[in-house]
Amino acid sequence: RIDGARLWRSLMEMAEIGATPAGGCNRQALTDEDRKGRDLFVRWCREIGCEIRVDRMGNIFARRAGTDNNLPAIITGSHLDTQPTGGKFDGVYGVLAGLEVLRTLVDNGVQTKAPLEVVVWTNEEGARFSPAMVGSGVWAGEFSLEYGHSRMDKSGITIGQELERIGYLGDEAVQPTPIKAAFEAHIEQGPILEKQDQVIGVVTGVQGIRWYDVIFFGTPCHAGPTPMEDRRDPVQAMAWLCEKLYGEVRAYSEDARITCGDLRASPGSRNTVPEKVVLALDLRHPTPEGLEHLHRTLYRVAKQVQEACGVAVDIREEWFSPPVAFDSGCIEAVDSAVQSLGYSHRKMVSGAGHDSVYVSRVAPVSMIFVPCAGGLSHNEAESAEPGHLEAGCNVLLHSMLNSAEL
Amino acid sequence: RIDGARLWRSLMEMAEIGATPAGGCNRQALTDEDRKGRDLFVRWCREIGCEIRVDRMGNIFARRAGTDNNLPAIITGSHLDTQPTGGKFDGVYGVLAGLEVLRTLVDNGVQTKAPLEVVVWTNEEGARFSPAMVGSGVWAGEFSLEYGHSRMDKSGITIGQELERIGYLGDEAVQPTPIKAAFEAHIEQGPILEKQDQVIGVVTGVQGIRWYDVIFFGTPCHAGPTPMEDRRDPVQAMAWLCEKLYGEVRAYSEDARITCGDLRASPGSRNTVPEKVVLALDLRHPTPEGLEHLHRTLYRVAKQVQEACGVAVDIREEWFSPPVAFDSGCIEAVDSAVQSLGYSHRKMVSGAGHDSVYVSRVAPVSMIFVPCAGGLSHNEAESAEPGHLEAGCNVLLHSMLNSAEL
Ligand SMILES: NC(=O)NCCC(=O)O
Ligand SMILES: NC(=O)NCCC(=O)O
Repeated sequence: RIDGARLWRSLMEMAEIGATPAGGCNRQALTDEDRKGRDLFVRWCREIGCEIRVDRMGNIFARRAGTDNNLPAIITGSHLDTQPTGGKFDGVYGVLAGLEVLRTLVDNGVQTKAPLEVVVWTNEEGARFSPAMVGSGVWAGEFSLEYGHSRMDKSGITIGQELERIGYLGDEAVQPTPIKAAFEAHIEQGPILEKQDQVIGVVTGVQGIRWYDVIFFGTPCHAGPTPMEDRRDPVQAMAWLCEKLYGEVRAYSEDARITCGDLRASPGSRNTVPEKVVLALDLRHPTPEGLEHLHRTLYRVAKQVQEACGVAVDIREEWFSPPVAFDSGCIEAVDSAVQSLGYSHRKMVSGAGHDSVYVSRVAPVSMIFVPCAGGLSHNEAESAEPGHLEAGCNVLLHSMLNSAEL
Repeated sequence: RIDGARLWRSLMEMAEIGATPAGGCNRQALTDEDRKGRDLFVRWCREIGCEIRVDRMGNIFARRAGTDNNLPAIITGSHLDTQPTGGKFDGVYGVLAGLEVLRTLVDNGVQTKAPLEVVVWTNEEGARFSPAMVGSGVWAGEFSLEYGHSRMDKSGITIGQELERIGYLGDEAVQPTPIKAAFEAHIEQGPILEKQDQVIGVVTGVQGIRWYDVIFFGTPCHAGPTPMEDRRDPVQAMAWLCEKLYGEVRAYSEDARITCGDLRASPGSRNTVPEKVVLALDLRHPTPEGLEHLHRTLYRVAKQVQEACGVAVDIREEWFSPPVAFDSGCIEAVDSAVQSLGYSHRKMVSGAGHDSVYVSRVAPVSMIFVPCAGGLSHNEAESAEPGHLEAGCNVLLHSMLNSAEL
């Protein structure tokens, strides 16, 4: 069994880096805070004798050797970056649960046959740099390294520049090494486990996600003398589109999700009709057909709005992560670990994207969820119970041990 | 008659300061560009022997003495600040038309009995610092000096700090000196004169304006796992409010105006429902009852949206400029100047706010409008015909001379 108190202490120590007044974390990808978080993780791993590799996307691999290092590795991990107003657990838990597994093995002098690795993936959140999961995506071959390095934040700074600046532009090639199985522990970030009073979610897959920039092009003019019928007002068009789209998405299915996390008007002067409004849109559905339906709905509504408002609506497709089914062997490994440990559990599909989505392209994967209070995540008040975090970490330990063999 | 070619050259020289690639001007209030524009104006005025005073709001008064300086002055002027994507004429024309009147008198050795002044008012646009017309507003006693100095831009810099930084925190008290009559020349910023093929608008008043920050408070949560019915989404609430409000305002009367010039979501991350959306709203109507109706409509719709979406909607009233009727004597002075010059003309109410609104609180005022192409303003493509600008300046010359006496 892992040491739940040590895991909790490590989570709390990491949470001090980028701590916000409201009790959350702002440790956005590749900022100075992210560097401090990475440095702390690397120090902790070195303290237990791990070998550290950093690749050219800044992904960090901490390796504990096995007795037969020709065997493919068992890997786990997640991310240390957070949302701008993020919590203490999203991502961090998966990294530190992996570390706790290694610490437990070291403490107990347990040696596995296969080597074990804990990975920190770069820019999972997609908050500072779009898209999400870009570090694991480049590693798995979904994106080119050039694409990864050229992702830009709102102020025009790229991932490549920031990796260099914070000292995490490693020299390893960004590509998979042989892997037998991968597991990722994470808070659920939704309400299902808590509502159903279950301790562990055995994750069978991840719903599909599509990201768009929807850009409305108007004609700037004066707020006073310009008659309403002479205007091409991108705010009016944006409001129409949102109003219709929220309605259609919600009517389509209970499983469908629509979120507009960012909105910007330019030039942004109260008495000038804006030239441009940019809407950052996120659509999700667990099935390929469902997501395709939402995608088509967006294009149809945008066309209606364009015709009705005389405002050009440009849809830029930012990211497409289709629904993913995890490996049945890995799901089985998690399931039997949970059963042997006796925790209440259910199978479930993840509503959030995770690095495991891209890892699953090149290796057998599944995930382990634990409840979070009120299902709340991407919020400074995000919280999880020490007992649940401990349980999830025990499931991770046993899932990894079963795959790695003693 | 004034020198139309010289007026045009001065307009074009001023337009080089803050010139944008798209052919407009970005000379926002109290920036370095604004300072350069002010410096150029001051130099031009000194070259013709004017005395310069600057008050503690940065308003600049260029005075040409009369033969009897105990007489109250005849003043004219407007503003040199622009929108972020503004044009070459809005405001600047009124300032440089005033300068051209003085140059014409100097050239012709004409001496008036009453002194003449050309005024540059600070931050008329309200684009960088809200509200609009704040320099003339403090001067006229509508706002306190503390209020004026404490206005902040989006980055938290105040008018007081910027006045000091650019060297335009003058030492004169911000208060009216004796004034017999005031005139302001301006482009119409709307389509009426052009559509009706008139050269001069004799302005009888200004419609009412109300500015609001409408703030929607949501609960940040994850874009994926959070069920739609568990969300408090401020973007959805904002879209509903806009959709309803645009509809109601447009249905109410052809004269009603609604503009949302700025929109900001925070924290602004695509996969997080925002905590807050701020909408910068501008409502206008020519009558007090009409504006009051729009104001009440806003509160009613906000209440509906708040109840329907479970998102708190907070309305902060930023500015209220009631409809204004100009002085009949000054309107008459402009009207008879136009008649004697033989330009086609009509009476009209201004859709835009102007410094003359606040000047009219303490002195008899009216305004002179000239057409602008397509009625377009607050746009880099804003343009006006040299012949029209010359005509408006001649009307200004004769209006001022009639009031100042020879
Ligand atoms: N786990 C997590 O919050 N991932 C961010 C990617 C997403 O938007 O789902
Ligand atoms: N003339 C002008 O553009 N004034 C700005 C104030 C307003 O919004 O009407």
